[in-house]
Amino acid sequence: MDPAAVRVTVWGENLQEKTDPPVRAIYPLGMHTTIAEGIREHLGTAAEVRTATLDQPEHGLAEDVLANTDVLTWWGHRAHEEVDDRVVDRVQQRVLLGMGLVVLHSAHRSKIFRRLMGTTCLLRWRDAGEREVVWNVNPGHAAARGLPDAFVIPQQEMYGEYFDIPQPDELVFISSYAGGEVFRSGCAFHRGQGRIFYFSPGHETHPVYYQPEVRRVIANAVRWAGVGPLPAYATALQGVNSPTGWYLTPTGEALAGDETHPRAYA
Amino acid sequence: MDPAAVRVTVWGENLQEKTDPPVRAIYPLGMHTTIAEGIREHLGTAAEVRTATLDQPEHGLAEDVLANTDVLTWWGHRAHEEVDDRVVDRVQQRVLLGMGLVVLHSAHRSKIFRRLMGTTCLLRWRDAGEREVVWNVNPGHAAARGLPDAFVIPQQEMYGEYFDIPQPDELVFISSYAGGEVFRSGCAFHRGQGRIFYFSPGHETHPVYYQPEVRRVIANAVRWAGVGPLPAYATALQGVNSPTGWYLTPTGEALAGDETHPRAYA
Amino acid sequence: MDPAAVRVTVWGENLQEKTDPPVRAIYPLGMHTTIAEGIREHLGTAAEVRTATLDQPEHGLAEDVLANTDVLTWWGHRAHEEVDDRVVDRVQQRVLLGMGLVVLHSAHRSKIFRRLMGTTCLLRWRDAGEREVVWNVNPGHAAARGLPDAFVIPQQEMYGEYFDIPQPDELVFISSYAGGEVFRSGCAFHRGQGRIFYFSPGHETHPVYYQPEVRRVIANAVRWAGVGPLPAYATALQGVNSPTGWYLTPTGEALAGDETHPRAYA
Amino acid sequence: MDPAAVRVTVWGENLQEKTDPPVRAIYPLGMHTTIAEGIREHLGTAAEVRTATLDQPEHGLAEDVLANTDVLTWWGHRAHEEVDDRVVDRVQQRVLLGMGLVVLHSAHRSKIFRRLMGTTCLLRWRDAGEREVVWNVNPGHAAARGLPDAFVIPQQEMYGEYFDIPQPDELVFISSYAGGEVFRSGCAFHRGQGRIFYFSPGHETHPVYYQPEVRRVIANAVRWAGVGPLPAYATALQGVNSPTGWYLTPTGEALAGDETHPRAYA
Repeated sequence: MDPAAVRVTVWGENLQEKTDPPVRAIYPLGMHTTIAEGIREHLGTAAEVRTATLDQPEHGLAEDVLANTDVLTWWGHRAHEEVDDRVVDRVQQRVLLGMGLVVLHSAHRSKIFRRLMGTTCLLRWRDAGEREVVWNVNPGHAAARGLPDAFVIPQQEMYGEYFDIPQPDELVFISSYAGGEVFRSGCAFHRGQGRIFYFSPGHETHPVYYQPEVRRVIANAVRWAGVGPLPAYATALQGVNSPTGWYLTPTGEALAGDETHPRAYA
Repeated sequence: MDPAAVRVTVWGENLQEKTDPPVRAIYPLGMHTTIAEGIREHLGTAAEVRTATLDQPEHGLAEDVLANTDVLTWWGHRAHEEVDDRVVDRVQQRVLLGMGLVVLHSAHRSKIFRRLMGTTCLLRWRDAGEREVVWNVNPGHAAARGLPDAFVIPQQEMYGEYFDIPQPDELVFISSYAGGEVFRSGCAFHRGQGRIFYFSPGHETHPVYYQPEVRRVIANAVRWAGVGPLPAYATALQGVNSPTGWYLTPTGEALAGDETHPRAYA
Repeated sequence: MDPAAVRVTVWGENLQEKTDPPVRAIYPLGMHTTIAEGIREHLGTAAEVRTATLDQPEHGLAEDVLANTDVLTWWGHRAHEEVDDRVVDRVQQRVLLGMGLVVLHSAHRSKIFRRLMGTTCLLRWRDAGEREVVWNVNPGHAAARGLPDAFVIPQQEMYGEYFDIPQPDELVFISSYAGGEVFRSGCAFHRGQGRIFYFSPGHETHPVYYQPEVRRVIANAVRWAGVGPLPAYATALQGVNSPTGWYLTPTGEALAGDETHPRAYA
Repeated sequence: MDPAAVRVTVWGENLQEKTDPPVRAIYPLGMHTTIAEGIREHLGTAAEVRTATLDQPEHGLAEDVLANTDVLTWWGHRAHEEVDDRVVDRVQQRVLLGMGLVVLHSAHRSKIFRRLMGTTCLLRWRDAGEREVVWNVNPGHAAARGLPDAFVIPQQEMYGEYFDIPQPDELVFISSYAGGEVFRSGCAFHRGQGRIFYFSPGHETHPVYYQPEVRRVIANAVRWAGVGPLPAYATALQGVNSPTGWYLTPTGEALAGDETHPRAYA
C-alpha cells in the first residue's frame, strides 16, 4: 500500500438499500459500496478506501477508525436522528483537527453537517426525477479538476434555494433544474483545520453515483479534503494559556534565553 | 417609545459581580447594566434596551422576550455550562430567523457562540493586564463608524491567535498586545438571516465597558445586527417541498394560472 | 430636500436609445431616465437622483458631480471603450473613498467594473428573449429586502457561468434561464471603503427596468451602497508613514504626552 | 528534470542591489537569486526555478517565458512605474488563465498587484528595523505547512493597517510589530483561474530572505499557487456566445443529438 495514500472511510446509512426494492435494484451492495468504488476508480493506489455503516457497532466509526481516516464521506437520509451523539462529537473533533469530510446529498440534514455549520441546512426540494445541470463557477478549484463547464444529470431530486448554510468559503458548483430552480450544489468550507465539501447530487432512486462526472467530483473532493491531521495544532485547539513572562519583549531579545518560548509558540 | 427603535436585550452572567470584590468594585450593578448604559448613551431613543441574567427564570430569555428582541448581546465567563440547552436552542432558532447577536469577550466559549460557529472557539490567552491596540481593518463597515484608525485599551486580558472560528464573513478589527500577540478582535458573521458580531474587549477585572471607543463599537454592532426578523423567511427555514406541477415551464406561461405558485415562490 | 438623502447619479450610455428603434420604443427618454424613475419611486425623498450620459462633457461626471454623489449607477454596452480613462480613474478613486457603485447588466464589461475587479468579467450569453428566474440566496442582505424567494423576468438575454469575477463578498441572487444556465446575478463587493453591487437583469430590448421587482432591487442596492464617503480615511488611502517615535510603547504610556499621536492614529 | 515539476520564474527589480551598498552587502547577487535559492532548497526537484529582472528585454518576461511559467514571484520597490504596461497586461492575462503569482513585500504597490486587486494597495509603514511576529491564523492552509504558531523576524520595516486590499479569500498570517501595529501579512486571493499570494516580509536592508521560516512560506506559497494553467478554460475567459438552439430542453433530450452541444458546454 502506498504510504502516502489518502485513507478514506465511506460512511453509508445503508437502510433504504435493504428495505426499499427500487433502491436495492440500483445499489444492491449499498450506496456506500458504489461510492467507494468510484473513489477507487479515480484515485487508484493514491487512496485506501474502506466503508462503515449505521448498523455496525459505533456506526463503524470507533476511535481507532477515525484516527486512521484522512477523509470521511457521509451519506444519510432516513436515520439522521439514530446517529449516536457521541459519534457525532467524535467526528466533529476529528474534522476540527484536520480530517476531511465530504457530505453527500440528503446528508445536508445529518447531525454532523448541521453541527459544523451552525444552521438548519434546510432547503427546497421536489422528488420528480428532473434534469439537473451542474455548472462549474470556480474552474481553478481542485474539486472541479477535469470536469467540463457543465454536465447533465438526467434524473434527480430537485434541491433548491434558499439553502440555509453559512456562505461557503468557496462556491464551486451551482445547479439548475428543469423547474427553474437553482442550488449551490458544490460548497467548500474550512472549519478548524479540516476541510468540508458538500456536493448535492446523489438521490437513492436514481443511479447518480454511477455517473462518471459525479464520481470524479467526489474523488476530487476527497483529494482536496485529504490534507490529513496537523498534529502540531492539536494543542492550539485546546486553547493555550501563555503565562506572564513568556511573551516577547519589544526587541525579542529576552526570548532567546527563554526555554518556555518553544512551548508558547511552537 | 420610537416604534422604529431597535429592541435590545443585554444578557449577563452576573456572577463574578456578586462574588468577586474586585469585579464588584468596577461593575457594582453588574456588567450587563454598564453595557446597557453604553448602548443607550449612543443610540438614545433609537434603541429600547432591557437586561436579562443567568439567575432569572429561563435565564430571562423566555419565548416572549426573544420574540420582542431584535438584538441580543451576550457576556458569560464562568457558567457557560449552566446555561440551559433549551434556551440555547431557542436563541439559535431566533438568530437564524433574523435576530442579531453581539458576543462579547469570554462569551467566545458560550454554548450559543460555539453552536453557531461549529468550532471550538478556543484561543490563546494571558491575564496580565496588558495594553491592547484595536486596529480598524475595514473602515467601510458599519461596526467601525466614527472610530479612529486604532484605539488603545490600557489594560486587558490578552486574547491571541490561533482563534478557532470559521473565517469571518467580514473581519473588522485586529488587535495587538504588549506581548506581541495578535487577535481577530472584531468579526462579523451571517448565519441564516441573522447577523452575529464577536468583539473581544471586555474583561471583568478592567473597566473596559466604560471606555468610550468600546461603547461605540458595541452600539455600532447592535445597530448593524438589528435588522430584525424577516417573517417571510420563517417558512424557508422549515424547508419547502415544491410538489410536481408547481414549477415553472420554460416559457413561464403555465404559472400564470397556477394558484399554488405564490406558495412556492413567495 | 432631505439633508440626509442619498445623492444618486444614474449614468447611462444612452446610445442605442437614439439609434436603435426597438430600444427607443421601450426607453424613449433613455434607459437612465427609467432607472432614475424607479429609484425615485422606491426611495422618494430619501434620495436625490440626477442623471449623466456619455455624450456630455466629461461624460457628465466632472469632479464636482462625483464629489456630490453618494452612489453612482452604471449602464453601458456598446461604447465601453469610448469612456475616457481619466473619468474611469476618477470614478475608481471615488469608489475607494466610499462612493457606492451599482453596475447593471452589460456594464459587466465596462472599464470601471473591470478596473475594480481585476478580472476579465466575461461571461456566457445568448440573446434569445428567455425566461429568467431570479432566486434570493441571501435573505438577510439589504439588497434583498421586500423581495420574494424568487421572481420571474419573462424575457431576458441569458447571462451564464463561468462569469470571470472575484468571488463576491456576498452573493445575493442566482438566476436560472430557460436554457438551463445559471448566473450569479446579484453580487456585492467591498473595495476600499466603497460598496459595489452588480445586478445582471436589464437588457435594452426588453422592458426590464419597468418591472417592479427589478426596480426594488436597484433601489435596495442604492440604499445599501450609499453609506457615503468617510473623510477620515482619505488619508489612510494615501498611505501613512508613521515615523520612529510615533509608535506605542509596551505600556502605552509614552503616547499620553505625544502630540503626534493623533496624526498617527486618527 | 521532473516532468511534474512546478516551473517558477522569480522576478526581481534588481536595482538597489546594484546602486545601494547596504543592500548589495546583504544580497550581492540580487534578491531574486536569494529568493530562487530558498525555493530550490525547499522544493528540490519538484521545482524548476529561473529568474528574470527589470533590465532584461521585456523585463525577462517574454511571451514564451510566461507560457512556460506555472508560478511567477514578484519583488519590486523603486521602479514600479518603469514596468512596461504591455508586460503587465501579459502577466495579468496569464494569471487569469491559471498562472500563480506570489507578491512579496514592497511589491504591494507593483502595477500587477494593483491591477489584479483593483484598489490602491496602500498601507502604513515605518522603516525602523523593528521586530515582527508572524502569526498563523489559518493552520489548515497549504501556505502555513510546517510552520510554528508564530515566528519572529528580528528586524523588519513595519507594514501596518489599514492595508487597502479587497478582503482576502483566505487570510493566513497576521503580523504584529514592536510599535503595536498589526498587518494582514499573508493573504491568498483567487482571480480568474489563478492563485495569488501576498506575503509582506522581505525588506531590502534586512536579511529576511535568508531566514528559514520566510523561505518555507514562500516555497509553500509557490506550491499552493502552482496548479498550472487550465487549457479548457482559455475559451471561457473569452466569453462564450451560446446561440439559440444550443441550450438544454427541460428533459435534456434534444441535446443527445445536438452536435453543437460539446462546444457549448465543454
